[in-house]
Amino acid sequence: MTKPLRIALAGLGTVGGGVIRLLDTNGALIARRAGRPIEIVAVSARDRSKDRGVDMSRFAWIDDTTALAHADVDVVVELVGGSDGPALTLARTTLGAGKSFVTANKAMLAHHGLELARAAETAGVALKFEAAVAGGVPVIKGLREGAAANEIERVYGILNGTCNFILSKMEAEGRDFADVLAEAQALGFAESDPSFDIDGVDAAHKLSLLASLAFGTQPAFGDVAATGIRHVLAADIAEAAALGYRVRLLGLAEAGPAGLFQRVHPHLVPVSHPLAHVTGATNAVVAEGNFVGRLLFQGAGAGDGPTASAVVADLIDIARGEFGPAFAMPADALTAQGPADAGERRGRAYVRFTVADRVGVLAEIAAAMRDAGVSIESLMQRGAHADGSVLVAIVTHEGPERSVAQALERLRGSQSLVGQPLWMHILG
Amino acid sequence: MTKPLRIALAGLGTVGGGVIRLLDTNGALIARRAGRPIEIVAVSARDRSKDRGVDMSRFAWIDDTTALAHADVDVVVELVGGSDGPALTLARTTLGAGKSFVTANKAMLAHHGLELARAAETAGVALKFEAAVAGGVPVIKGLREGAAANEIERVYGILNGTCNFILSKMEAEGRDFADVLAEAQALGFAESDPSFDIDGVDAAHKLSLLASLAFGTQPAFGDVAATGIRHVLAADIAEAAALGYRVRLLGLAEAGPAGLFQRVHPHLVPVSHPLAHVTGATNAVVAEGNFVGRLLFQGAGAGDGPTASAVVADLIDIARGEFGPAFAMPADALTAQGPADAGERRGRAYVRFTVADRVGVLAEIAAAMRDAGVSIESLMQRGAHADGSVLVAIVTHEGPERSVAQALERLRGSQSLVGQPLWMHILG
Repeated sequence: MTKPLRIALAGLGTVGGGVIRLLDTNGALIARRAGRPIEIVAVSARDRSKDRGVDMSRFAWIDDTTALAHADVDVVVELVGGSDGPALTLARTTLGAGKSFVTANKAMLAHHGLELARAAETAGVALKFEAAVAGGVPVIKGLREGAAANEIERVYGILNGTCNFILSKMEAEGRDFADVLAEAQALGFAESDPSFDIDGVDAAHKLSLLASLAFGTQPAFGDVAATGIRHVLAADIAEAAALGYRVRLLGLAEAGPAGLFQRVHPHLVPVSHPLAHVTGATNAVVAEGNFVGRLLFQGAGAGDGPTASAVVADLIDIARGEFGPAFAMPADALTAQGPADAGERRGRAYVRFTVADRVGVLAEIAAAMRDAGVSIESLMQRGAHADGSVLVAIVTHEGPERSVAQALERLRGSQSLVGQPLWMHILG
Repeated sequence: MTKPLRIALAGLGTVGGGVIRLLDTNGALIARRAGRPIEIVAVSARDRSKDRGVDMSRFAWIDDTTALAHADVDVVVELVGGSDGPALTLARTTLGAGKSFVTANKAMLAHHGLELARAAETAGVALKFEAAVAGGVPVIKGLREGAAANEIERVYGILNGTCNFILSKMEAEGRDFADVLAEAQALGFAESDPSFDIDGVDAAHKLSLLASLAFGTQPAFGDVAATGIRHVLAADIAEAAALGYRVRLLGLAEAGPAGLFQRVHPHLVPVSHPLAHVTGATNAVVAEGNFVGRLLFQGAGAGDGPTASAVVADLIDIARGEFGPAFAMPADALTAQGPADAGERRGRAYVRFTVADRVGVLAEIAAAMRDAGVSIESLMQRGAHADGSVLVAIVTHEGPERSVAQALERLRGSQSLVGQPLWMHILG
């Protein structure tokens, strides 16, 4: 057996502990698969004294995280997190020192992926990040390699387990968002500050990486239009169900002559679509290619075991010498595309209004839709809330998004509306 | 850009034509991704004069397929088919000549995979076969690389699109097997001699490859116990539905101290499981790993486009230099495991009897079950057929398969039974 692949590990939280346990448990098998052992030799974290449930004494402890880059190792694994700060410094220093770098840090890659990919290429080393998107699901590999023969027409999926947990629980139990979020927080499935997840920022980070891999474009996180799930009501989920849909927070990207389109938004997914059956914290990504058709990759999107599985899969690729450019092609070959104009997109929409229970409200909504050129496929009005407000849910025929936006603009400030309307796209 | 990867293509049927069209259509994009162009330079097939809808004059035509191995190429792609004969000769000659070999030929690999993997390693070239299992779905890569950090506990899936097409059509339309098969043949979804598909042989070939990748064992096609779907009735599917299951032909493999277990058999899949929602000719594979949990890979299992996508993905890996041992580890590291004894397996079973409509039949069945130690969870008896026969469907509690086999053995030759009972396993 050839010499081991030597690893330095930065960050000893849940995932870092998972990586150590995985290598302890499956090390012999991994050595057979990788052709050589994978050995952690040095670690760094904030708190040396914390009990992590595994024997840490066998690793060199290095107080200064950045100094890991200069340890006698082949690869630095970064599980510190944060788009900038110590993680970014470590990435730059490691690649600058000519060592490979593996990370689960979607925020850092969304912001600095191009720079880091270039640095890895210059040094002739690996930059790998399977764990950054969809946890244990090998979707980075699926796009970079598995679907590589295809022009990808679009890529989309359920990229945030917390949101999917909340939506599928709202669906199963008929409960409202705030109630389920509080439970998810109590169970540890949602952060105490959940906004990164529920406002779609985390999914947007991941989507920008998938889009780059799928379309050969530079990661463009700043161009992702992200909305979360705060404003989805149990009643919306029930209306969607009555129409044959489930509500899912999807990240969706398409590339075309008009530019790169990237959106994170709650969607209505037809029950005939596999994503409609993805419940709980599971993640799932669909890539539609011009030869392969629709590919689906699904599995656990978070957790120490699945995330460690993805990190170590990257290490195995490196141990085997099977790696190349981080974003599927050399950084200089990635194109810079401007954002596509969402208004030009055609599709069907679900729009739900909370309205005052009084004469003329429906006429006002219908007139705004008509004047904006929106064709209504169905309209449902359901009973009054305790506060006297009423829900009106509209499904439109296919048409440009611009028209729906114009209709909502016309209704802005109307005395008939209580709060903001909720606009969800229907996955076609 | 470095020099092209030069390809010789053997076999110009549907998939061969698909590979040519794919490279014609996506060639520029593929060159960006692979870092170099991929160019077909020589071809061989039985009939030179046949119109294949693409310009063949740009390729060198070589009458003797085996001679492709000595053409001035880097890789030979084999799309001839057949477990032995010209395909095997070509594989041996190509690898012997120190050239890489890409194939979609599951039968050949199931029978000769170990020998060919060894030959590829000796020559230091690639042997790749993504298209051999699940068409366009990158499940070979998913197991070889994506899930490589895990001890795989079991791997299973829907591996034959023809069977899934038939079963899901029987389910949707309440029709019987023979009727749907005839329609599938008329539509070109089933061969005129369909036995390879519907008797589970094709799925068994694929399963033996997945098992080798998952467990680090030598491919052992001869140890796959394969049953097909000929004996599944529309009534079985209806009973299963009433119980909350869908009927799917699954290939399933597990490795353990008792040996390697490999089975292709119709199963009852709970509707809560993603495989229950896989309809039509789609394929789907689940790998359960000790850290990653349950991974699902799904997509088109056949057809020229998807299969070509997988073939060219292999070529891109080779162009990038990202390849290693065919079965995830060196051939000599693959273990030879004997087959596990199915009788020792524990699970729940669905057993359906067609019985004569007379006194004492239920008592006879119930007594046989009791005497064999099979505990019955539920029993349904439904109306009489036109011929006076009646269906009795039993679902057992969890127990050893040996007991069910013993109960059926006790009932063998009983005058109460009309035809063979159907035993399906319930996916747990």
